[in-house]
Amino acid sequence: MIENKLITAIEIEAKAKELKSKGYPVISLAIGEPDFPIHENIKKSINKAILENKNYYPNPQGVVELREAIAEYETKRKKIHISPDEILITAGGKPVIFYTIFSLCNSDDEVILFEPYYLVYPYWCKVLNIKYHTIKLNEDGLIPKDQLLKHLNNKTRLLIINYPNNPQGSLMTEENLELLLEVLDKYPRIYILSDEVYSELVYEGEHISIFSYNKNRVILLESFSKTFCMTGLRLGYGIFPKEIIKNLVTFNSNLITGPATPIQYGGITALKDNEVKNYVNFMREEFKKRRDFVYEKLKILVKFKPKGAFYYFIEIPYDSLEFCNKALNEKFLALTPGSLFGDSFKNYVRISFANSMENLDEGLSRFLSLL
Amino acid sequence: MIENKLITAIEIEAKAKELKSKGYPVISLAIGEPDFPIHENIKKSINKAILENKNYYPNPQGVVELREAIAEYETKRKKIHISPDEILITAGGKPVIFYTIFSLCNSDDEVILFEPYYLVYPYWCKVLNIKYHTIKLNEDGLIPKDQLLKHLNNKTRLLIINYPNNPQGSLMTEENLELLLEVLDKYPRIYILSDEVYSELVYEGEHISIFSYNKNRVILLESFSKTFCMTGLRLGYGIFPKEIIKNLVTFNSNLITGPATPIQYGGITALKDNEVKNYVNFMREEFKKRRDFVYEKLKILVKFKPKGAFYYFIEIPYDSLEFCNKALNEKFLALTPGSLFGDSFKNYVRISFANSMENLDEGLSRFLSLL
Repeated sequence: MIENKLITAIEIEAKAKELKSKGYPVISLAIGEPDFPIHENIKKSINKAILENKNYYPNPQGVVELREAIAEYETKRKKIHISPDEILITAGGKPVIFYTIFSLCNSDDEVILFEPYYLVYPYWCKVLNIKYHTIKLNEDGLIPKDQLLKHLNNKTRLLIINYPNNPQGSLMTEENLELLLEVLDKYPRIYILSDEVYSELVYEGEHISIFSYNKNRVILLESFSKTFCMTGLRLGYGIFPKEIIKNLVTFNSNLITGPATPIQYGGITALKDNEVKNYVNFMREEFKKRRDFVYEKLKILVKFKPKGAFYYFIEIPYDSLEFCNKALNEKFLALTPGSLFGDSFKNYVRISFANSMENLDEGLSRFLSLL
Repeated sequence: MIENKLITAIEIEAKAKELKSKGYPVISLAIGEPDFPIHENIKKSINKAILENKNYYPNPQGVVELREAIAEYETKRKKIHISPDEILITAGGKPVIFYTIFSLCNSDDEVILFEPYYLVYPYWCKVLNIKYHTIKLNEDGLIPKDQLLKHLNNKTRLLIINYPNNPQGSLMTEENLELLLEVLDKYPRIYILSDEVYSELVYEGEHISIFSYNKNRVILLESFSKTFCMTGLRLGYGIFPKEIIKNLVTFNSNLITGPATPIQYGGITALKDNEVKNYVNFMREEFKKRRDFVYEKLKILVKFKPKGAFYYFIEIPYDSLEFCNKALNEKFLALTPGSLFGDSFKNYVRISFANSMENLDEGLSRFLSLL
């Protein structure tokens, strides 16, 4: 059912949903999708925009008021001035990955990815025929300095990092931050794409963003999907250096124009509404409880709790694709195979705890019964 | 203000909106956007989907019920069986252009475009480094047989056609249909991308779709934007041959996942609701009245009324970019420069009649005062 080729967590989820719609008692701990509904105030503002006929083509860089709201929100969070002109609103965070690789890299350039990686990074490198090197993160989810320095050369154009990390749950450290800033200093051609879609889901410690330290050479990728449970509404953004963004606005305009206009108005409410802010805090606390609950059930298998995001990444004594197929077909349990995160993780599975305690309890029991 | 480079009608419209928001009495006859609001039943069904929490990631090929509705709708319209598996739901129609060129063409292949063209076609050829030839349509908006046959060769991979035509308003004829079917027969490598987003906006004669005659070699591009006034909601679809669609689902999944889930539910209502059907008929009649009104005002300048779509494409004794700049800056009138439709049309402007009678009256007076 799950073929041994490029396949996304979303495709596995689609298969799980199909089985569920046929009446099978499927539990999915596969996809990175909060189970909480979107806050009522966001829903209301989208519905209001639709009724007020804010349904015409959006500005291809994004609705101005939303870019203003993001500029204010990120200026505060990142402690560095950001202007609406530097922001491109995209249909979720994934276009920022494609746009960045496409606009920065030529066929001679090289990209550095860190394993375990989000499958979308190597996908676009492969599709665009851009060479990439993979460096395995340390067991604690951090960048090994010696490995990174060994792989850098004059062709290196882009590093893609992801903190808080999916699937390891690690945060960027001061040490790694210094290392990366040194790399930017030493290699003037290199840019960093910093995927920070889990920035608001941190349970211990603090999220450090390299974007705060060198926004001329770092592209920030953010999304409304995880923080505001807006996965299906497809709203995200990139903050780009000025020399890149102008062509990308035209690119975006020729590709999709932009995310649906009324949904962009919902994004303004997400960022500005105080009740939504409290809701995000509430969800973070709930995710933390679930994280702790899962730890209790799996502590024979895992060494530490994730500091951020909402996944456990677990080594198993089986091939992950076969195991996940079996879990879905025999136990109606959807999990994400570790092989999707890189060749080093063929014996891993990713378990999402973005699900109810009941589903986690039952899902983990099914998982443990397979070991 | 409008730079002499790749620029889209949407960017001109954004500039016009910006001026309008600053208080200038802007009238835009530039963009291809119906001024009618979205039908209440479509709005209601989107709002209902949002309130019912149909806000999770969509199936990356598109919500199944929407694909089923499209399959039924197109099977009826095209008089040929279409299955939901052949349909990919996209964020408006433009992704279908990019996806098609990207999936079919390699660097050795050639694309044939017909001038005047929709700017998005050559944009993607250029960005993807695919060679294209341009053939100028006859004055009546039809394909000149001799020219087409002269340009075909073993490298030709894709023809992109657009009927009802933007900006000429012409329809596909039986003669052109036969010509294109012969080309498909004679050149087994060639596919045709048939952009039919104006298929429901026909005022005289009948829309013929080549897709009905050879769906194995024709990709159908359709959109909810023009027919249902859903421009800002970004909903469209492609119907693809089976050997192409599978990879495109993964492509779409890695790029944007899909259009926003609740908006896909609105698409179902657009296709199935009888009141919406009546509304489309009402709009078509209104557009026809406007077309006739514009003809009366411009008949010194134009030779015939457009049969479909909602534009007049008019020759002027000026450089179109300069003229459009002047119109916007001095008369606050937004028009689309003909140069966007190909080098042969540097002395043309496109005037959209998707606007109220009042705005058309005032806008055309401003236009005429500039001649």
